Amino acid sequence: MTNEELLVATAVGSWKQIIGRADSVIAKYTDEQLDRHVAPGRNRVRYLIGHLVAIDDRLFPSLGIGERLYEKLDAAYVTNPDGTLPDPVSTEELKKAWFDVHSKLTAAFEQMTAAQWLERHTAVSAEDFAKEPLRNRLAMMLSRTNHVSMHLGQALLAK
Amino acid sequence: MTNEELLVATAVGSWKQIIGRADSVIAKYTDEQLDRHVAPGRNRVRYLIGHLVAIDDRLFPSLGIGERLYEKLDAAYVTNPDGTLPDPVSTEELKKAWFDVHSKLTAAFEQMTAAQWLERHTAVSAEDFAKEPLRNRLAMMLSRTNHVSMHLGQALLAK
Repeated sequence: MTNEELLVATAVGSWKQIIGRADSVIAKYTDEQLDRHVAPGRNRVRYLIGHLVAIDDRLFPSLGIGERLYEKLDAAYVTNPDGTLPDPVSTEELKKAWFDVHSKLTAAFEQMTAAQWLERHTAVSAEDFAKEPLRNRLAMMLSRTNHVSMHLGQALLAK
Repeated sequence: MTNEELLVATAVGSWKQIIGRADSVIAKYTDEQLDRHVAPGRNRVRYLIGHLVAIDDRLFPSLGIGERLYEKLDAAYVTNPDGTLPDPVSTEELKKAWFDVHSKLTAAFEQMTAAQWLERHTAVSAEDFAKEPLRNRLAMMLSRTNHVSMHLGQALLAK
């Protein structure tokens, strides 16, 4: 492997490590555990998982690797705070959505070259990107990885 | 910049983004806020900050960029659970330790080349590294970045 390939594989490896940790936690959640709040008055675990699915689902169009799959989660888990709307999907469907989005993203990431990771994502204009080349697809992927870590850390507090 | 340089700068940019977010949260903490628990029966914010300082401090020797600065935090914030030992440093000293470790790490990271990031860290043997080249310094830095995100997400729940 070239240095470029090793750097990209290491960054994708970081994503896979965090998603793998989340996978094993999420796979075991019961209905009742998903309805627990991470702390008194804070979000339910179910809200955080739905939120991560909906946000990471946006990586498909943002990174130019596909269409969104779970836009139907946005209203309940992104645009409104927890408890505003009824849960739009069952526990089984929520888990399926998590695994579907993240396994498809990982498969797409494993095919991307260094040059592709260094292209701009759709949230930055071509003009801005010319001045700020670090606002690339890799930056967005690493940011989403940390976003998963942040909420996974919170979900692990629920009891 | 070459692709290698852009990939490395993007990864270091991810570290800087998360550490910057933590910096602004930590700078504002009062004594009283640091003593809050992130959830009932869970760690105090102070413990999490001390834990992150002590763990990230180990990056100096692990990445071959210096000696440890705050080994004295290990007993209270790494090897023992919260509440076992008295806090070894004051609030002011804890904040100073956070900024000291993280600003020095960032300065060192900004000087490292792609080839250096792809070297092995000291937690992997030369023999294992020959078989698993993704267990490199970049992988360890990205892992620590996610570790900060995980506990920062928890700290943000304290109220």
